[in-house]
Formats: sequence, C-alpha cells, structure tokens
Amino acid sequence: MEFRGSHILSVDQFGRDDVERVFEVARKMLPFSQRESVTRVLEGAVLGNIFFEPSTRTRISFGSAFNLLGGNVRDTTSEESLSLAKGENLHDTASVLSGYCDVLVMRHPKAGAVAEFSAQSRVPVINGGDGANEHPSQALLDLFTLDQEMRAKAKSVDGMSITIVGDLRFGRAVRSLCGLLSVFDSLDVRLVSPSQLTLRENLKEKLRKQGHEVSEFDSLEPALAASDVVYMTRIQTERFASADEADLYRGRLRLDRETYEAWCDPDTVIMHPLPRDSRRKARELDEDLNPNPNLAIFRQTDNGLAVRMALFALVLDVANKFEEKSRAVPWHTGARA
Amino acid sequence: MEFRGSHILSVDQFGRDDVERVFEVARKMLPFSQRESVTRVLEGAVLGNIFFEPSTRTRISFGSAFNLLGGNVRDTTSEESLSLAKGENLHDTASVLSGYCDVLVMRHPKAGAVAEFSAQSRVPVINGGDGANEHPSQALLDLFTLDQEMRAKAKSVDGMSITIVGDLRFGRAVRSLCGLLSVFDSLDVRLVSPSQLTLRENLKEKLRKQGHEVSEFDSLEPALAASDVVYMTRIQTERFASADEADLYRGRLRLDRETYEAWCDPDTVIMHPLPRDSRRKARELDEDLNPNPNLAIFRQTDNGLAVRMALFALVLDVANKFEEKSRAVPWHTGARA
Amino acid sequence: MEFRGSHILSVDQFGRDDVERVFEVARKMLPFSQRESVTRVLEGAVLGNIFFEPSTRTRISFGSAFNLLGGNVRDTTSEESLSLAKGENLHDTASVLSGYCDVLVMRHPKAGAVAEFSAQSRVPVINGGDGANEHPSQALLDLFTLDQEMRAKAKSVDGMSITIVGDLRFGRAVRSLCGLLSVFDSLDVRLVSPSQLTLRENLKEKLRKQGHEVSEFDSLEPALAASDVVYMTRIQTERFASADEADLYRGRLRLDRETYEAWCDPDTVIMHPLPRDSRRKARELDEDLNPNPNLAIFRQTDNGLAVRMALFALVLDVANKFEEKSRAVPWHTGARA
Repeated sequence: MEFRGSHILSVDQFGRDDVERVFEVARKMLPFSQRESVTRVLEGAVLGNIFFEPSTRTRISFGSAFNLLGGNVRDTTSEESLSLAKGENLHDTASVLSGYCDVLVMRHPKAGAVAEFSAQSRVPVINGGDGANEHPSQALLDLFTLDQEMRAKAKSVDGMSITIVGDLRFGRAVRSLCGLLSVFDSLDVRLVSPSQLTLRENLKEKLRKQGHEVSEFDSLEPALAASDVVYMTRIQTERFASADEADLYRGRLRLDRETYEAWCDPDTVIMHPLPRDSRRKARELDEDLNPNPNLAIFRQTDNGLAVRMALFALVLDVANKFEEKSRAVPWHTGARA
Repeated sequence: MEFRGSHILSVDQFGRDDVERVFEVARKMLPFSQRESVTRVLEGAVLGNIFFEPSTRTRISFGSAFNLLGGNVRDTTSEESLSLAKGENLHDTASVLSGYCDVLVMRHPKAGAVAEFSAQSRVPVINGGDGANEHPSQALLDLFTLDQEMRAKAKSVDGMSITIVGDLRFGRAVRSLCGLLSVFDSLDVRLVSPSQLTLRENLKEKLRKQGHEVSEFDSLEPALAASDVVYMTRIQTERFASADEADLYRGRLRLDRETYEAWCDPDTVIMHPLPRDSRRKARELDEDLNPNPNLAIFRQTDNGLAVRMALFALVLDVANKFEEKSRAVPWHTGARA
Repeated sequence: MEFRGSHILSVDQFGRDDVERVFEVARKMLPFSQRESVTRVLEGAVLGNIFFEPSTRTRISFGSAFNLLGGNVRDTTSEESLSLAKGENLHDTASVLSGYCDVLVMRHPKAGAVAEFSAQSRVPVINGGDGANEHPSQALLDLFTLDQEMRAKAKSVDGMSITIVGDLRFGRAVRSLCGLLSVFDSLDVRLVSPSQLTLRENLKEKLRKQGHEVSEFDSLEPALAASDVVYMTRIQTERFASADEADLYRGRLRLDRETYEAWCDPDTVIMHPLPRDSRRKARELDEDLNPNPNLAIFRQTDNGLAVRMALFALVLDVANKFEEKSRAVPWHTGARA
C-alpha cells in the first residue's frame, strides 16, 4: 500500500510488506518513544484527536505519540463531540475539521462511521476504533509487540502458536488482531471463548485460507500447552444488551499464576489489550501474574507509542526525516528505564 | 483602533480601516494556514481557550490557529467550566486565568458575559460567542471570505448585493455580520426570514444610515435575483423557548440546486456559518449543492484559521514578525490542495 | 530530599532546606512565568494532567507551567477519567500512563489515591489534590507568596503571626499549609473556625512541637490584631454530607473592608487559596477589599505558575538548565505588567 496521504481504517488494508514497513519504522521510533532522543519533525503540525466515545488511554496514546514527533494536538472528548453532531452530517464535520488539522484520529461508537467520515476528509484519518468493527492501531501494536517478544526469545511470529481468550465476538481488538495475523505464515491459532462469543466465521475462514491452523475451545486449560503466547481479553459490558448479560460471561475464563504454572510453557508470553477488569467478579488476567517477566501488557502499551508514531510518520511521509535532527533528552528519565 | 493589547468583543469596535487591516494580515496568514509554511512566532505563548458552552468547531479553530503560530493551548470544555463558576464571580476567574495565559478566547452562554470577564483580564480577550449577542471572529471570517470570493470574480464587497436568510433574530453570526457589513459602501442587503424572526430594528437602521439599501422578504425566491451572495443560516434550537417552537420555523427557507438554478445568477456565491442542519426536517442548505463551485462554506471555515491567526497576531503585536523565520512544511500536505 | 525522579505527594516530605530549594528555583522562574523570557528546556516532554475530579484552575495552572518550560500537555477531565477507572485498578492505569508521559499530575476525589497511583508509576507523580487529604503544590505556592510578601515588607516568614480562617477541618489547602508552616521558626499561628470545623489535633500538635504558638478562636476580630497575614478560606460544600450542612457554616466568618480597617494592622497581607465564594450568603472575603494593595490573592495564583514550574524542573532535574537558552518574549505583554 501507499502510506503517504492514506487513511488507516482497517487491517484489511495491510499486506505482509505493509506490516513489515510499519514495524521497521516503529523500531526506529523506539529511541524516541522511550525518551532517549527528541525529534521535532512535525513541529507546526496539528493532530485533531476526535473522540465521539470516551477512551482516555487511546486518546492520550495517540496524542503523546504526536507530541513526541513535535506536533500539537487538539482534542475533543465524547460529551462535547456528540453535540457537534447535532444536525450536521459526518461529511460536513470532516470537511471542516480536515481544514483545521494535518491528520485526524477518530473514535466513534458506530461501526463504519470513521470510514464514512474519512471519505470527505482532506487529510489522513486514522481509525481509533469504530464500534465493534475495527481498531487497526491496536492490532498493529499487538503484532509489533508479538514480533518484539518473539525476537527476544529467538523465535518469530511465523510459525508461532497463539491462544486468544475471551469475548471473541464483540471485541474489536481481537477481530482486528485476527485479521492481521492472517498475513503471517503457519500459525497455530487457538480460540477460547464461551460458545456464545466465538469468533465470526469469516475471520476463521480467512485464517484457514492463509494456511493457518485454527482450533476452538470453551475452556482455557487444554488450549495452553506449548502456546508461545496467551492473549487475554475482557468481557466488554458496553457491547451487550445489558450489564446482566455481560455478567453471564465475566469471570468464566481466567488466567492466574496457578493456571499459568500448571499449563503454560515457562516462557509463554502473556498479553492483553487493556484495560483488564480487576474486579473480583471478572479478573480475566490475575494480578498475581504481575511479577512474571513474560507479562508483556505494559510493553504493549509502551509499544503503542512507537507504532502510532510510525503510522503518523508514514501517512505524513516523514519516515525518512524524523531521525535527522534528533537530539538527546535533557531531562531525567531514569525511573523509566 | 489600536489592536495591540486590545480585547476583541464586538464588531462595533471595527471601522473600515480596522477591517482592512485584519484582511491584510489574514491574507499574509494564508500560506501558513494552508500549510505551505511554518512559523513559530508565538513559541512559548499560552492561549486559554475557555468554553462555558460547547462549540467543538470554534474551539478547535481558535486552538489550531494558535498552534499554527507556534503557541500552546490550554482548553476547557463546558461541563467542567460550569463548575469553575460555582460561587466565584467572573472577575476573579478573569484575574486568575489571565495570569496563566497570554491571551484568552471565551465562549459563554450569557450575552455580555465575555465583556464582563474582559474587564478584569490582564491579557487580551477574544469573544468566541456570548449568548445571542455577538460572535465577531465569525463575522470577520465571513467578510474576509466575501472579500476573497468577490476578488476571485473581479468584483468587490463594496456595491455587492447580499441575501441573508434564516433566523435573523437570534442568530448571533448574522447579527455580527450585519453589524460589520455596515462599514462597506453601497450594499444591497436583502433580509429573508419568517416574520417572527426578522433582524432587529437597530441593525437595519445602522445599515440604512450608512447608505445601504435594505429590503425584507419572507420567502426566498424573490430575494435571489442578481444577488452576488446568498448567506444561509440554520434555525438554532438552543435560542428558542422549546424545540417545538424552533420546529415551527425549521425547513421553511431552503436553498437547493433546483432553487439555485431557477433563481440565482450562475456565479452567485453560497455561504453558511455552519453547522448546517442536514436532517430531513431542516436542510436549509441542501447537500445537492455540494458540487457547485460557488459553494464557499468550507472555504469559509478554512479562512477562519487565517482570520483568527490574524486576530492573535494583531492583539499580541506580532503581525510584522511572523513571516521572519518561516520555513517550508516538511510533511505531506498533498490531499489538502 | 532528593527531588530528581521523586513523587511530590505530601508536605511531610519537605524539610526547611527542601522548601528553601523550591523557593530558590521558583524565584528564578519568575521572569519566565511573568513572560519576560522564554525557555524551551522541556521541549519534547509530555505532561499527563490526569484529573479524576474537575478543577479547571489547578489543571490549567499545572498545564501552563509545563508549557512555559517548553513541554506539551495531555489532559483528562473528570467525566471521561471516571470511565477510565471502570474495572481497572489504579496500578494498571499508572503503569500505562507513565509510559505515555514524562511526568504526571493527578487530582483524585479519594484521599490516598494519588499515593497509591504513584506506587506503580515509572515517572514522577505530583499530587494535584487527593480528597480532603493534601494539596502540596498549593501549600508551597502559599508559602512562597508569604515569603515574597514578607520580603517586600522587610519582614520574614520566621517569626511572623498568621491568622488562618474558615473550614480548618476539611480544607486540604489549609491542612497542607499548616503542615508546611511547621518547618519555619517561631510562628504565632491563630486558628479561627466554627468549633465543629477546627484543625485536627495532630496538626496542632506538630506545630506546637516545633515551637510555634498556636491559639484558637471561634470569631474573627480578636484574632486579627497585629497579625502579619490573614489567610481566609471558603466553606467547601463538596466535603459535607449535604449542602444544607455546609450552609450552616457559610457566611459566619467574613473579612471585609470595615473589619480589616477596624482590627488589622494597615500592612496586614490578605490571602485566600481561591476560589472565593462571592455569593451573598458566603462572602468570606469581600470584594470591597479588592483595591487594597495588601490583597495578595492574585499574586498567589500568579506565583503558582512559578512554583509549579520549579517542581517540574526539580523532579525532572533541569533546574540548572532552564536559564541557558532563554530568549526575550517577542509578543506584547504590556497589559500584564
């Protein structure tokens, strides 16, 4: 794909070469996202961080990523943004905001809304999550983390076995992840979910067509043996008809230290798109695993900065410029290392 | 008027020379607002973007304009700001915030509140809309757009005929626009509104006193012939006693392609302060006019950046400095052109 | 204390030397906070301004302070932030956000929440107020103002007499202030409050142990004679069981011009942590004192910028670097002086 000037709406846009290109730029971003160096390549540029649904974590991750490239950020949060929509269609909103900004990130509660918006935007739009549909930057940071974790263990994403657990029906992070996994080779994908929350058929089909092995489970333990990665997810109340319905599934699939030690290989990587639900009734990923060095969940969020910086650099075509005028960070960053 | 250090509260502050001065600076801002060049003249300055009423569009326009001059922006959005006011009078708020910032933009639901606030501010305050009263930066960007559009057609604002349509009673954009039109020469101003929503007498009087022709209509078609510009506005629910009352007027005055082609000159410019209400019951400016090259509504919002940059540059006295250290934009801006 | 990399959670961390160190750096910050010079020492750094409770004033003060050092700010406001917390514990939130930012400011409605959060943060956390517990940056800016005001009158904080008035039980600003006062020498501290809202015993004990004189009053006048400073505070509705209960105490202790002129020395400094409650039923600090040159309340908020800049500079270890590349402010700042 041609990144320059493109919208990033779906993982379906990404072939293997595109994913590798994002990873290559993201790896170059790590010294900047980890505060070893400062770059100002986007000094003077403005990001419109347009959130029609609250998501502090994603909003700040995109915003910080843009700041770390030297740019400024104009934010909207949900309550206010909904008023923006009163009577105005998304095409007008896009025409206006794309005049104010150099690139836009949009989160919207409705599937397809970001694509609709992007059709009228004069600048690149990055999908920050649209309803139960897609969250491509999350899938890219998940895959980038997988790639980094596998490299650190002298393995590779190709040929790995990954166990994906939880609400596979409504979780957009999972759906985008499975879509993106299909560009790799010879995966052993194990899907663990309550039978009512299985991954949609077309995504399984896509994985199988690419030659991956796909197996399904409704309990966790049998899916863990010799798995390189366990990817846990939470039950997302907001996608169910009621909180009570969501509660039916919450807490049924849990990974804790005892389960990990009994069933997983000792170097199995643990991931989660966060937030994890740490309330007693949920706890899909128990805090007693926090000391485990294979717990990669905060390396995931840290990597999110580098991947989002890479996406901005690619669509704004500065991937070959940001290292030019880099300089050392003059402030204390010791606690971070 | 002396711009340096001044508050911008009302169009009544502006004589013809002042308007021309804003336009002159705004024209110089266009290469920067259109991302041909970067300037950092306000690097280190802080804008306080204080919104006691939500207005994503205006808030982001002012914020981006300040960023494009190199400055930083601290924002407040309505929900939070209302809590700020609890028990504290506006004078104290102004004394405090003007210590934190170098310039303030304020939107407030109450007419006159911004002027009251500005009385105690130690830095320039720009009125971002106060109730049904004024919205001077909107009027300036409307006039600047009119000036640019007329120039492009080898005409001028002086002597033009303009048809202004919709809620002329409560719409503050229209009221500020009419106030500002009066500084030009020999206009033919046609006011079209339901009889209950006509422009206030004092504004009509002011226009007539300056030698302009003012005529009133309660239907659209007879007002369109040989008009250089049609300025459409929406019915603003929030200014009526109830949504039902607002609905009485909504959808009664509409410009669509059929009407335009039947009644307007083929080069009549179409404007609207946005947002336009595209719901079936409203549609004061139909989307079927989107392909018409005379539709200037997104050139208006684009020009808003340049005009707001000009206002900041004038009150902070950097209008002769911002071009000095300009440099080329290093990122991709192709889709914008 | 070692400031570099430290969290600023409580005034209990500060000995006399530490307070003097903050003041020394804050005094150097004044030319920057007062817009005589620009510094960009934190260019490329990101502040996470995380507010789980609305506080426009404090949020903007911290944000502007960071901008004035050259850094960028990512904000959250309360409504959205509460959704962030759903099911996620503060430790996870801290792990994630401390990867996105170089320093964090947190306001939280629960006492102790900021300390809990900081335990997992990889970057310095500054307490921006946690419930009825602490607000250390407010106490530091109050003390810095006291120091500046006393110097201007050729007096010193050591040996001064200070009258502190209002809700001394729930007001966290007062509690942090009293905690910090104890590091000075030979103070005459007069506490004036309704008998139900007296300062907690342990804070009085701490002051007395350090050799300060502490006396208590339930009416204002007898506590004013020969006082160097009167520090007024408002009744904080949000800390009472009901608004009605708060109303019982509101308006009982008031300083106005008549009282000041009758009972205070003519150079007694007047302070207040703001906002003051100017509603008729409250008015603990009457606006008729606004012309009095000893009214230091807006010098307090102005000083807040310098003190918060000093805290950022100290925990990020740039206190010896920020003056290096300073340059003159190119925009108009006349009205401010």
